[in-house]
Amino acid sequence: ELEALNEGPFTSAAVKMIFKEIFKASLDLEESNDKKQLLVSRKVKVEDTVLDIDGVRIGGDAPPVVIAGPCSIESEAQMEQTAAFLAARGVKILRGGAYKPRTSPYGFQGMGVDGLILGSQVAQANGMLFVTEVMDTRDVEIVAEHADILQVGARNMHNFALLREVGRARRPVLLKRGLSATIEEWLYAAEYILSEGNPEVILCERGIRTYEKWTRNTLDLSAVALAKQETHLPVIVDVTHAAGRRDLLIPLAKAALAVGADGIHVEVHPSPATALSDNEQQLDFEGYERFIGALQGQLKQPVGV
Amino acid sequence: ELEALNEGPFTSAAVKMIFKEIFKASLDLEESNDKKQLLVSRKVKVEDTVLDIDGVRIGGDAPPVVIAGPCSIESEAQMEQTAAFLAARGVKILRGGAYKPRTSPYGFQGMGVDGLILGSQVAQANGMLFVTEVMDTRDVEIVAEHADILQVGARNMHNFALLREVGRARRPVLLKRGLSATIEEWLYAAEYILSEGNPEVILCERGIRTYEKWTRNTLDLSAVALAKQETHLPVIVDVTHAAGRRDLLIPLAKAALAVGADGIHVEVHPSPATALSDNEQQLDFEGYERFIGALQGQLKQPVGV
Amino acid sequence: ELEALNEGPFTSAAVKMIFKEIFKASLDLEESNDKKQLLVSRKVKVEDTVLDIDGVRIGGDAPPVVIAGPCSIESEAQMEQTAAFLAARGVKILRGGAYKPRTSPYGFQGMGVDGLILGSQVAQANGMLFVTEVMDTRDVEIVAEHADILQVGARNMHNFALLREVGRARRPVLLKRGLSATIEEWLYAAEYILSEGNPEVILCERGIRTYEKWTRNTLDLSAVALAKQETHLPVIVDVTHAAGRRDLLIPLAKAALAVGADGIHVEVHPSPATALSDNEQQLDFEGYERFIGALQGQLKQPVGV
Amino acid sequence: ELEALNEGPFTSAAVKMIFKEIFKASLDLEESNDKKQLLVSRKVKVEDTVLDIDGVRIGGDAPPVVIAGPCSIESEAQMEQTAAFLAARGVKILRGGAYKPRTSPYGFQGMGVDGLILGSQVAQANGMLFVTEVMDTRDVEIVAEHADILQVGARNMHNFALLREVGRARRPVLLKRGLSATIEEWLYAAEYILSEGNPEVILCERGIRTYEKWTRNTLDLSAVALAKQETHLPVIVDVTHAAGRRDLLIPLAKAALAVGADGIHVEVHPSPATALSDNEQQLDFEGYERFIGALQGQLKQPVGV
Repeated sequence: ELEALNEGPFTSAAVKMIFKEIFKASLDLEESNDKKQLLVSRKVKVEDTVLDIDGVRIGGDAPPVVIAGPCSIESEAQMEQTAAFLAARGVKILRGGAYKPRTSPYGFQGMGVDGLILGSQVAQANGMLFVTEVMDTRDVEIVAEHADILQVGARNMHNFALLREVGRARRPVLLKRGLSATIEEWLYAAEYILSEGNPEVILCERGIRTYEKWTRNTLDLSAVALAKQETHLPVIVDVTHAAGRRDLLIPLAKAALAVGADGIHVEVHPSPATALSDNEQQLDFEGYERFIGALQGQLKQPVGV
Repeated sequence: ELEALNEGPFTSAAVKMIFKEIFKASLDLEESNDKKQLLVSRKVKVEDTVLDIDGVRIGGDAPPVVIAGPCSIESEAQMEQTAAFLAARGVKILRGGAYKPRTSPYGFQGMGVDGLILGSQVAQANGMLFVTEVMDTRDVEIVAEHADILQVGARNMHNFALLREVGRARRPVLLKRGLSATIEEWLYAAEYILSEGNPEVILCERGIRTYEKWTRNTLDLSAVALAKQETHLPVIVDVTHAAGRRDLLIPLAKAALAVGADGIHVEVHPSPATALSDNEQQLDFEGYERFIGALQGQLKQPVGV
Repeated sequence: ELEALNEGPFTSAAVKMIFKEIFKASLDLEESNDKKQLLVSRKVKVEDTVLDIDGVRIGGDAPPVVIAGPCSIESEAQMEQTAAFLAARGVKILRGGAYKPRTSPYGFQGMGVDGLILGSQVAQANGMLFVTEVMDTRDVEIVAEHADILQVGARNMHNFALLREVGRARRPVLLKRGLSATIEEWLYAAEYILSEGNPEVILCERGIRTYEKWTRNTLDLSAVALAKQETHLPVIVDVTHAAGRRDLLIPLAKAALAVGADGIHVEVHPSPATALSDNEQQLDFEGYERFIGALQGQLKQPVGV
Repeated sequence: ELEALNEGPFTSAAVKMIFKEIFKASLDLEESNDKKQLLVSRKVKVEDTVLDIDGVRIGGDAPPVVIAGPCSIESEAQMEQTAAFLAARGVKILRGGAYKPRTSPYGFQGMGVDGLILGSQVAQANGMLFVTEVMDTRDVEIVAEHADILQVGARNMHNFALLREVGRARRPVLLKRGLSATIEEWLYAAEYILSEGNPEVILCERGIRTYEKWTRNTLDLSAVALAKQETHLPVIVDVTHAAGRRDLLIPLAKAALAVGADGIHVEVHPSPATALSDNEQQLDFEGYERFIGALQGQLKQPVGV
């Protein structure tokens, strides 16, 4: 061992201390080199990336955005009611799933292309952007045709083929953190998209899997703070999936905005009890009024920790 | 099977629906009975418990408190500098460990009774309360003699003998959530204390163990929201142990206050680099100035989600 | 509350007990209905599914299989050496990745089609089956052309579009459990494949994410026992990714076989130190000799808990 | 940065490589020093520690032991029936809790000293050793008076005061891994006991907390393999708490013995349905017969990976 060979003027403790310092310096060197290479890193691009999608600004000095809408697109009536309601309350981005990732193959799988067309038309008619999930590399083209923002869901965050494909699309991408992805893996997933030439990525924290049973997932706001610090990308928080229960949406949204999130993602449905998916956690219209009322103060001012 | 026996006028689906309703009703009944029995529950005591410890109010409509001080009590100079510095900035509660829970038996184990005396004297001299951890049922009496608030640490949250013993002490108790305790277990740990006759418990969330490596623990602010909702006790957040890194303290403290925490717990040391424990995460004085400056707006107003 | 309304001849406790019984009956009813519907369930198919792939039998009363080969297909020399070595030791199934799921877009992504051709030729020349991962729905056809078994990796276990597509392929599928998938989700992922008409699924446990740092993942052998119990499908264990370190491969493989696994998956490379991926955990040839020697007794006898 | 200063004959890559080597050497040095100091380490004591408690040998070349008995000591009849039944089947160590760690303060807390006396008498009358849990430093003396082996439960693995106190007792200690303790923390907990002068520690793995819901805990057999490799202490596996369900006890016990465990811990009760604690997971006598029958082959031969 090195220590045994040490016969010189320094004590073993001193030698160890020197080694430690060299070790730290070498780690810092490694790290700075690695981060230099990542397109998502603030070391590569210091200033915030601010998306401007048909006039809707996300990130940087823009005030926080609200992305709202039903879990699944189910019918024309459902979408029109929801969009009209939300648009009247200033929401600029309508969400709604046409392709649904369901644990069981026998669950409702979404309306598919019909859903895309419906979501797109309703959003446009109400002066909103339309964001929807894409799950298959073969669907990226058609989804990009109808949607203003492509969502990569938590279950596909490690689907590298899909990440590359949305990296080649000419649409901004909303990238959810995986069910139990590390922050590092999440940032690398974003890097997949940027490395294919698409710089418009919005990161979305939605809670991670833990042993805790009173919530569906455990919202990790440290991840939001770290993503804002280490990258230049906008970061939003999906409070609906983080909590999995309506009674936590207001406090968690307040916390998310306080930690510096650039926006909030929340599911809203005209009649959650009869929804075809996620009916325990979507807000009804009255619930949304209370929700958004509680956040008024925070939503007016620009983000900035 | 029940279904096979069903020959009556109702379809199987209808029968299933009825069973489901009965099941839910029975669960609600169970739950309401269980919660009725718990002394920590809002069903037993609707209004917030507000502690008043020699004039320092915690919980309810009191503005958020700051509990600050070094991880370990190390010397008179260290404690006097820290207390004077913090007291001058309005901090009313001084923390400092005399008995230290250390992973290794060869780590610094704390100054023991000398530390208790020192912490108590310095706090008093600066007009502050003194909170310190107790780890052994046999030490509860002596710690209660010197401290104004007894801390039960995360590693002892499941130490039921200790919980009972502090439940018999005539001192408020700061009860940290266990390293991977469920919210339910945490509330039951508080119930142990209340059930022994001590109603003055402050719950303290400090992050839980997850697979994530960029933070020491994952701060669970849903737990804060749920503890505030389900119990009448004050809830504070230990941002130091939640993050395990200094660069997250400000955003996490902002989020904690936004979610409705009744206070913030943070470690401050005159010279963190030479501290005998936790030297990667304690704030120095300059760091504390920045920290508290960033929270000014939120600290002035009473809590209330 | 129900209790308050109870004026009848029964005590509240009795009423509660009755509700509990009804609740349990309704749950059992639910569960038995749900499980009845699943094609993977033993309630649907009592006897073990035994695959016979060109004479190689997997599952049921067949002795445990060994699936071995390098993490990535890197060169002709590498594959030929490995296949010849393994075939001479009785291994019937050669693994090797042509498409590699890598955390970073800048990591080695695999040889693609050239890798497929190489792996297929080398396997055939040595009288072995070839198993390789498919990551993109668009690649299922070409991979199925060259491979005898299609692997769905842990990162794609929730990629439902891919599950459906391999469900339409006429090849057996090796389905790894997701990084933090529940056992239930894993079985539902298999159900996606069966529900598309492909009954030949091999489940593969490969460890799950936990807070533990001394291993890359935590091998969950309860999941193996439960998958064997609840489904009729063969279940194998990937010891390489479970442990992430060579020194645990032998004890974990012994445990896996003892718990009832139908086979072992292990990575072997002629020169792990220079491998293009996973070089900390692949076995070299000498290591494999020791590994397989230690398992001899268990590999000879048919599985059966 | 170092790199910027590099003007010499070496490329940056070469400099980085050298730093990496130095870094690794320094880490190895650190590690070897740290491990040298730990009394639990195989580097300090190469050969297995074999306990001999009144003729019952545990660890090393001894055949695996079975520790069995009810969760809680409830009555004389219960204990006598169980002990007679188990003793007749060769079990040498009787377990039974006199002090019970219960999540709720209103759960059955154990018979206390009466339970100690009862357990001790019944064990002795049947020629068995008696192991029981101690939860309070103040009880160590009285428990040591009646028990042959002191158990430190999972909830107290981080109770350092208790670890020290059992380290001063003249009784072997069965040390359960904490609910979510890392392997490293578990070994350090054992070190606490050894450092106080008590070398007779039996490590007991009992599953860890994960997100998985079909089992109460996730049994971590890698931890058993690593504890056997890194320490010289005997390691046993508590299958009852690992699984939390009876149908997994046999396969998990087989796996535990295959991985090299020095014994199995299992709960047995004359009438589990009416037990005062853990009634979902204890075996009845018939269940125990099946359980032990399934393990016969493995229990006869000495442990050894």
